[in-house]
Formats: sequence, C-alpha cells, structure tokens
Amino acid sequence: MAELIFTGNELLKGNVLNTNSHWMAKTLTSLGIEVKRMVVIEDNIDIIAETLQESLSREPDFIITSGGLGPTYDDVTLEGVAKALRKPLQVNSDALKMVRDRYTLAEKAGLLKINESEKLMVKMASLPAGASPLANPVGAAPGVMVEHANTTIFSLPGVPAEMKAIFSYSIIPWIKPRLGNAFHAERTLLVTGVAESRLAPIILDAMAKVSGTWMKSCVQGSGKSEICMSTTATSEDEANKRVEDAYNMITGKIREIGGNVKEGHDKT
Amino acid sequence: MAELIFTGNELLKGNVLNTNSHWMAKTLTSLGIEVKRMVVIEDNIDIIAETLQESLSREPDFIITSGGLGPTYDDVTLEGVAKALRKPLQVNSDALKMVRDRYTLAEKAGLLKINESEKLMVKMASLPAGASPLANPVGAAPGVMVEHANTTIFSLPGVPAEMKAIFSYSIIPWIKPRLGNAFHAERTLLVTGVAESRLAPIILDAMAKVSGTWMKSCVQGSGKSEICMSTTATSEDEANKRVEDAYNMITGKIREIGGNVKEGHDKT
Repeated sequence: MAELIFTGNELLKGNVLNTNSHWMAKTLTSLGIEVKRMVVIEDNIDIIAETLQESLSREPDFIITSGGLGPTYDDVTLEGVAKALRKPLQVNSDALKMVRDRYTLAEKAGLLKINESEKLMVKMASLPAGASPLANPVGAAPGVMVEHANTTIFSLPGVPAEMKAIFSYSIIPWIKPRLGNAFHAERTLLVTGVAESRLAPIILDAMAKVSGTWMKSCVQGSGKSEICMSTTATSEDEANKRVEDAYNMITGKIREIGGNVKEGHDKT
Repeated sequence: MAELIFTGNELLKGNVLNTNSHWMAKTLTSLGIEVKRMVVIEDNIDIIAETLQESLSREPDFIITSGGLGPTYDDVTLEGVAKALRKPLQVNSDALKMVRDRYTLAEKAGLLKINESEKLMVKMASLPAGASPLANPVGAAPGVMVEHANTTIFSLPGVPAEMKAIFSYSIIPWIKPRLGNAFHAERTLLVTGVAESRLAPIILDAMAKVSGTWMKSCVQGSGKSEICMSTTATSEDEANKRVEDAYNMITGKIREIGGNVKEGHDKT
C-alpha cells in the first residue's frame, strides 16, 4: 500500500496540471501496489513534516514524495522529511558526487559557473541522516530513499522527466523483488444505450461474484458509460481469469437489457 | 483559503487524470482564493468523514469535494459528509424535484424506466440535514452546499462537465459577493540561456522587494526555465502593478547575466 505526497505552490495555484500523480498511480497499480491517498501541499517545511507524519501513522509500505528537491529557495522537501523523522540533514558524499558531475556538464555547456554553485550543490546533496541518494539520469537533484519502521520513503523531483527516470531506473528495480507475487490485470468496456443507474446493480452483482475485482462505471454523458474492471492476484493466470469472468458476466447482462458493449476506452 | 477533496478509486488507480483539481485550483486562484491543500481518497465513508474532519480542524473558508454524488454503490460522499458533521441524511424535496426532472428526460430518451429508478433518485436527493442542493444543468446529481462553523462545504460530482457547470452557475455567484475585494494578476516568463540555479537569487531578491507576490522557477530542461509570478491584491491596479514591477525587475536582472527572456508559457 502506498501514499503519495506532491509539493508545489504551482500545483495549488493551478499553474501546472499534476500529471505526475496520474503516472505514479498507474505505474504503482500495474506493479500490484494499491495507492490509498494522494495529497498536494505547499512547499513548506512544517506542512511537509506534519503531512509525512500523518502518512507514516497509517503505516503504508511506501510513501513517495514528488517536488522540492532542486536548488531554489522553496525546495524544502528534504528539510520536511528530516523534520518528520527527527533526523539531521547531512551532506552525503555519493549525492554530492552525483550533483557535482551534473554541474560540471552544465558548466561546460556555459549555463553556470561551478565555483558560484558550491552552496547549491551542497544543498541538493544534504539528505536526512541514514538516507541514500538515487541517481538522476536527466537532472541535477538526486532522488532520496530512507526507511522508517516498515515504511520506505522515496523523495523524487517534481519535473516529470526526472521523476519518471528515477522511478523507472531506481525505484521499480528496488521494489519488484520485494513485492512477492502480485500481478495486475484490467479491462475497460464502453457501454451505450443504457443509463449509468441501470448498470449499478449489474456491476454490484459481478463484484459480489468475482472476488477481489474492482469495477466502476464512470458517466461519459449522453448515455455512454465506461466500466473499468481491475484486479491484483498472486498469479498472472488468476488475474487474467478474474477480469475475463467479470467481462463476460457484465457484457452478457448489459446485452440482456438492450445495451451495446465494446472493449476499450472512449478517447474524449 | 480553500481545501479540496477528490474521491475516486479511478483516480488512485491512475485510470483517470485528475483535471478537476487543475481547473478548480486555477479558478479559485483567479477569484483570489488561496488553495492550501488537495487530497485524493477512496470512495469510503469513514475515510471521507475523517479527511473532512481533519480539513475542518484547519478552519478553511471553503472545502470543496468532487466525486461520489451519483447513483452507484460507491457514490458515498454525502454519507461521509453527514458522518463528519454528525448530521443525518434527509431527503431534500428541492433536490428530489431536480433529480426527478432529469430522470423524466432520460426516460423520454429511452435510457431508463423511471419507476425502476425511485430508489436511485431518493439516494441522490438525500442530503445532510441543513444542506441545500445546487442545480446541475448537465447531469442528474445536484451539487450540495452545507455550512459548518465558519466553513462552507460544497460537494460536486466528479464528472468534469457537471463539476464545472455547478461551480460556474452556483458556486462562483455565491462566493463572489462574499469575498470582499480580491483581485488576482499573474505573468509568466520563459527564460533561456541560464541555469535554474542562477535564477534563484534573482527571484528571491524580487520577492523580497515586491511584497505579496509569489514567484517560482520551474525547470523545463535543456537550459530553459519558466518563471511564474502571481499576486492577489485589494485593487486591480495594485495587483497589476505588482506583477509589472516583478516582471521588470526579473527581466532586467536576467538580461544582465546574459539570459534571454520572453513572455508566456512554453507549451510542451
């Protein structure tokens, strides 16, 4: 089970659409990890620390933060993490080497002067005591991993390309062998010709009969509905069988009441 | 100050990108209302009630929920709101009339049989005691408004067209006369040729000099940065003057260190 924390005034002001939350939710779900809560908060040390402590009190397996690792004044996520864990920030030599290598490249490109940037590099390499840096192949600020009781906290940058790169190259390979067997399967139906309210008892009935499978109809407007069904099982065969059973059951019942069904999303 | 609560397993599983949060944040900001927190949680009565109580304890002026007002089994937001406020759900006759009018239209379109739908209509018209329905011009489920201490809670559907319609036709006209004078202004710069880390001291300096104005650089990759600046003031002139001052100050300093500046967003 995972909880996600996004920091950034630009998200709270609506300057930026939070595509990171969508990508992370989809990626974690496909790994068989249930996302229970996502929260967007300001770049504020105390609010980050409190939010993280609340999340830790629910004992998720993973907490992933995104945003606030960069060199600017409002990048305060690691200070918030350190405060929540009651640990000091310490310069991590591996992290400092990662940042310095990146800055050397930027200096060669004429974008900055490295001797002016020492303070910023040290800032990005200052991690909560006991944390490890995660290499950032496309940006300066390393990701950060720190364990607390039974929860692993990952802190990632907010820039989507950097978040995805660290997630894909460092987090997924770390998580996968620890997950045990968790296989995810999903299918989506597009229904026309019946109101959403008439689908409700059909979905409820199918959920009762196909255990461990989540189903939901989402209104699309003008008599179109989409039904998503998904499951996580301990074998790939079992996961596929469940969504197959749900698909057949729901499709049959909808056709009985005069609806039309086809597979797939409505891309609108 | 506002807090936003989004419910929906489809958001937590990454089936749906949360564009509602972006639209609401942008709309509230443009009204001069600060969004302090956004949270996405499951369609679960207890979790909704707890999350709402936590939010109420921070005493925001507004809490807006989105999702979970429809006729299906997992539409439980109003039960969660009622539980948080320790009020019973009661059938609201105005709400029932709104829902019935909408169902009569759907029956005429051959989408459902109204005599089969009585239970679903009553469900959508059952509001926490003391709440008022808000007309939904594009869907069946009315929005709901309920006041608690100094906080006004609005509950809206999750379907974007329905959320936006109720927000625009009911919430904005209700909020505006109560806001006092709050004028929002913003500008965005696109900077090339200097690293984000060199922009940090320029932004910090401008924020110290132009009071009440928020500024932030967001890395765009390959030496491009975007700087957003925004403010809320008690007069339109004052709001415009602040972002104008910030714009001129930042633009001048960036050009001094050899950067290029143009106005506007980078649409990538």
